[in-house]
Amino acid sequence: MSAVYTRVALIGLGLIAGSMAHAMRRAGLAGEIVGTARSAETREIARQIGLCDRIVDTAAEAVEGADLVVLCVPVGAMGAVAAEIAPVLAPGATVTDVGSVKRDVITQVGPHLPGGVHFIPGHPLAGTEQSGPRSGFAELFDNRYVLLTPVEGTDPDATARLRALWEGCGALVEEMDADHHDLVLAVTSHTPHLIAYTMVGVADDLRRVTDSEVIKYSAAGFRDFTRIAASDPTMWRDVFLSNKDATLEILGRFTEELFALQRAIRTGDGDHLHAYFTRTRKIRRGIVEAGQDTDAPNFGRSPVRRDGAAE
Amino acid sequence: MSAVYTRVALIGLGLIAGSMAHAMRRAGLAGEIVGTARSAETREIARQIGLCDRIVDTAAEAVEGADLVVLCVPVGAMGAVAAEIAPVLAPGATVTDVGSVKRDVITQVGPHLPGGVHFIPGHPLAGTEQSGPRSGFAELFDNRYVLLTPVEGTDPDATARLRALWEGCGALVEEMDADHHDLVLAVTSHTPHLIAYTMVGVADDLRRVTDSEVIKYSAAGFRDFTRIAASDPTMWRDVFLSNKDATLEILGRFTEELFALQRAIRTGDGDHLHAYFTRTRKIRRGIVEAGQDTDAPNFGRSPVRRDGAAE
Repeated sequence: MSAVYTRVALIGLGLIAGSMAHAMRRAGLAGEIVGTARSAETREIARQIGLCDRIVDTAAEAVEGADLVVLCVPVGAMGAVAAEIAPVLAPGATVTDVGSVKRDVITQVGPHLPGGVHFIPGHPLAGTEQSGPRSGFAELFDNRYVLLTPVEGTDPDATARLRALWEGCGALVEEMDADHHDLVLAVTSHTPHLIAYTMVGVADDLRRVTDSEVIKYSAAGFRDFTRIAASDPTMWRDVFLSNKDATLEILGRFTEELFALQRAIRTGDGDHLHAYFTRTRKIRRGIVEAGQDTDAPNFGRSPVRRDGAAE
Repeated sequence: MSAVYTRVALIGLGLIAGSMAHAMRRAGLAGEIVGTARSAETREIARQIGLCDRIVDTAAEAVEGADLVVLCVPVGAMGAVAAEIAPVLAPGATVTDVGSVKRDVITQVGPHLPGGVHFIPGHPLAGTEQSGPRSGFAELFDNRYVLLTPVEGTDPDATARLRALWEGCGALVEEMDADHHDLVLAVTSHTPHLIAYTMVGVADDLRRVTDSEVIKYSAAGFRDFTRIAASDPTMWRDVFLSNKDATLEILGRFTEELFALQRAIRTGDGDHLHAYFTRTRKIRRGIVEAGQDTDAPNFGRSPVRRDGAAE
């Protein structure tokens, strides 16, 4: 594949930016990849492992002459970065981001950008429990969705070019309205994360059930919650604060349903429980059929050795 | 390994019983394996695939001459099965079970059993989202915990023999008090399952977020909830009804914590959220170190093709 952009600037060098660097190189999508991060230690590690073609000290330096700028910082930091880079953005450049919330990023970033710069917000639905400049890998986006939420009046050619980059990285690209994105993600990601964090916190609090027991016997369901609850704290703090309305709405519905099930347990209403559990089983079948998970035994995991390494 | 029991009777032929049959054969742990199930269709499938050495029509027939009887039926059915088999149990036989709740099983089963029969309740912490006689496989228990909850005065030799069987099936065996088991499992399994069922139900209810979107974009956290919420409805109904007190206690604590986090989102208290999420990250590290999960990218899953098969 020939390069889609001449120079790509990655602002922030965590899991997503690192994986983009690897994936763009795998397919030759960028003439040059320039990276930067706020922390000197992160920049130093990125230099040592050769994550980008060039690592520079500031976001303003990184975006000079770039025809694509990707904001890979926590949602709460997007506005400040936009203000910093706005004066040096090349005319005709595209600015995108990888934040998990889209309306708030549009509100923060949009006003700073000069005319002639294309702003196309984006969100790759991919991640692991790892973070930092060493955590990226080229396959992260393979067969995963990237959602673009271009605002009205965005140049279709600029959107098509960004789409081509993500498809070159292995992703399936869809476009939707920013508010709709935020509601869908409140259901599929934000509320599940909050619930997982809560459950793990409860387990950690219970002194009668020692930590080591919770850990030893985690395979029985709790294990999946702990994986979700191991995600980057700063990123998730910003997600909840910036997608407040949708998250609170879904949380309200969740609590309502939970109380109904709790009442069924208390009153011994087995029929209610059985009917509810039968209904939820169906949605799982849809996910396996859609190719977004495997129903292989052990949840598709390789057996795990006692030392924690996969066999 | 030489046989640990001369004749093992499996009552109920779902995922756990099927996996026990495969695992016992892999290591030559049973002279003969006799199986039965309430449903004629299940018995017929079990016959066709040669799951056991013999398939018989009733539990009473199955336990004749067996030195180990394993009750593999939903927790709510344990008492009725115990009443049926009690008159035909061989003197000196061991009766165990694989139910997810232990105090209620002891209350249901114990009174039926004649003197001279060893009753040693058990619970293998292993499962998949599959059920039925075809779902078992020999590796299910490899490196997974089996918890035994023998009542006071149980013959240590009988317990040691059952332990040897499970260890031969690949499991790590621990003993604990039945009430403690029920509380630990309420934390590590029962409450997480109820929460996952609830979240999937909420997603299914939301008409503004179409099912297909929830399914397409499930990789962002929700996917793990749907897997948990795809477990067998009858089994889980019985778990909640029979471990009511511990589940309601943990649910109460969960709701309390969730409300505190919800309030932090509403009031914009980012410090509270960040501190909470940092704390929960630690417990995850313990689980990976304990060898109960992998921190490999993509959660140790193989990449999934569009047709849903693992690559």
